[in-house]
Amino acid sequence: MEDQAEPEVASPEVRKRIHESFDRQGLMAHLGARIAHIAPGRVRIVLPARPEVTQQHGYFHAGATSAIADSAGGYAAYTLFPEDTEVLTVEYKINLLAPAAGDHIEAIGTVLKHGRTLTVCVLEVFAAQSDANRKLVANGQQTLIRVNRSEQ
Amino acid sequence: MEDQAEPEVASPEVRKRIHESFDRQGLMAHLGARIAHIAPGRVRIVLPARPEVTQQHGYFHAGATSAIADSAGGYAAYTLFPEDTEVLTVEYKINLLAPAAGDHIEAIGTVLKHGRTLTVCVLEVFAAQSDANRKLVANGQQTLIRVNRSEQ
Amino acid sequence: MEDQAEPEVASPEVRKRIHESFDRQGLMAHLGARIAHIAPGRVRIVLPARPEVTQQHGYFHAGATSAIADSAGGYAAYTLFPEDTEVLTVEYKINLLAPAAGDHIEAIGTVLKHGRTLTVCVLEVFAAQSDANRKLVANGQQTLIRVNRSEQ
Amino acid sequence: MEDQAEPEVASPEVRKRIHESFDRQGLMAHLGARIAHIAPGRVRIVLPARPEVTQQHGYFHAGATSAIADSAGGYAAYTLFPEDTEVLTVEYKINLLAPAAGDHIEAIGTVLKHGRTLTVCVLEVFAAQSDANRKLVANGQQTLIRVNRSEQ
Repeated sequence: MEDQAEPEVASPEVRKRIHESFDRQGLMAHLGARIAHIAPGRVRIVLPARPEVTQQHGYFHAGATSAIADSAGGYAAYTLFPEDTEVLTVEYKINLLAPAAGDHIEAIGTVLKHGRTLTVCVLEVFAAQSDANRKLVANGQQTLIRVNRSEQ
Repeated sequence: MEDQAEPEVASPEVRKRIHESFDRQGLMAHLGARIAHIAPGRVRIVLPARPEVTQQHGYFHAGATSAIADSAGGYAAYTLFPEDTEVLTVEYKINLLAPAAGDHIEAIGTVLKHGRTLTVCVLEVFAAQSDANRKLVANGQQTLIRVNRSEQ
Repeated sequence: MEDQAEPEVASPEVRKRIHESFDRQGLMAHLGARIAHIAPGRVRIVLPARPEVTQQHGYFHAGATSAIADSAGGYAAYTLFPEDTEVLTVEYKINLLAPAAGDHIEAIGTVLKHGRTLTVCVLEVFAAQSDANRKLVANGQQTLIRVNRSEQ
Repeated sequence: MEDQAEPEVASPEVRKRIHESFDRQGLMAHLGARIAHIAPGRVRIVLPARPEVTQQHGYFHAGATSAIADSAGGYAAYTLFPEDTEVLTVEYKINLLAPAAGDHIEAIGTVLKHGRTLTVCVLEVFAAQSDANRKLVANGQQTLIRVNRSEQ
């Protein structure tokens, strides 16, 4: 179900392109993550709690938190790229602000600066017991590069 | 098999403590990662290639790369902590230098600065077809905090 | 002159403490920077353009941009600390989004997460020809630690 | 005086290009920084202690530390670039490991990965009372982009 507070939705072509790419990411399926919303320059990914994504204290593992944050930012950038291009993560930095406890976490990637070659995103990850009770558990910043398929 | 170039090994107590913590990380088992070496201030984690850890082009997903890098750094710090403490990742930054292609990747976390409260690690991830042909695919820097169990 | 859009102001005691600390920073005076606003959890520092703060193309040097960003974040955290404490920067990461051209730049440090030991800030730097025409030229994220004077 | 432990020196053309660029950086002269060594992929910048570069406790300000680290990394990358190109810092992350106390600090930028578009450097800053007694006070990682002058 799409979030009522996020009415803006990317075009069907962009959403199709992103869902196809996401479905080819073996890791996302293996973790149990799914795309919850695709707006121009903004993508949200949700990961339900399960023992397979925990760290030693039973919270979400920073690796799982980072994985969906990285994908959310990458696809947020990708919504703004022309066809026949690919997106690659150059680097990111993430602060783990609080234990990620809840029945799910969700990562939001938002484009901060969109350039011809490089794009910079802000990454946020919230943990929630319900949609009404969200807590920011990680915050990051990510640099991405656009690669033209003909150059590869 | 332990690496011949890494003869130094942490004490049995420290190795036991780290293996027990690692075994409680649901994510590491779910990805298929294992600890390959535990030296004082230096831990190596190996992740074999499989479809469940890939991104959309079939390489290792940055999330998988980061997950084992984060764990390697965390346990490297943990080798230097006293008993009855825990380690938490404060933040990390990682550059993805090249596509992570190979039959496995390995992350090495190395303590750069060990303090009473904070510890800083360098993170390196190599991709390899064989141990003789390793390539640096990611490089990072991580800050960790020591938490005394009685303070939690 | 205080910004009309920032009516909230820290207490006189906090502002005095921060101005005294700022005045002891030889670098800030040497660059020509000044504190423009001190709100609880949010500090703004302004640096006018002059040849002494440029890089090789005549724009503001990333080092000057970072210096005021780091100080803005540090003092933003410091507004929330009790007396008899000090603030130290643990680390920061900054993206330089565009050439910093204008008659001044201003850095805004905002506390994102305030903890007993660690505080995380978001850093923004804008370049402006006038207050009406601001452009985001850098964005960062910073971790700070509180040090009790008695512990030093 | 060039460091005896760094015999490798970049070509006269590269050194001339870098010294000319450095001399146009108003900030470096204003801080009192100078280039100490230029090797292929590795540049060292020294900054003597003076009140104009301090923070509130009399140590080197993180902004000064970062400024010379950023320049050292930028010029390290620039040694590997062809003529008629420019170097721009995309982003960097730096950990401040210890108070920067001494009669000078020196920043070493070293290229870790050199690509057609992007280059990644490791940044180290040492504080010293004398060359025989150096201490690592900051460690960082930096991403740079090559810009062809004809594209600007």
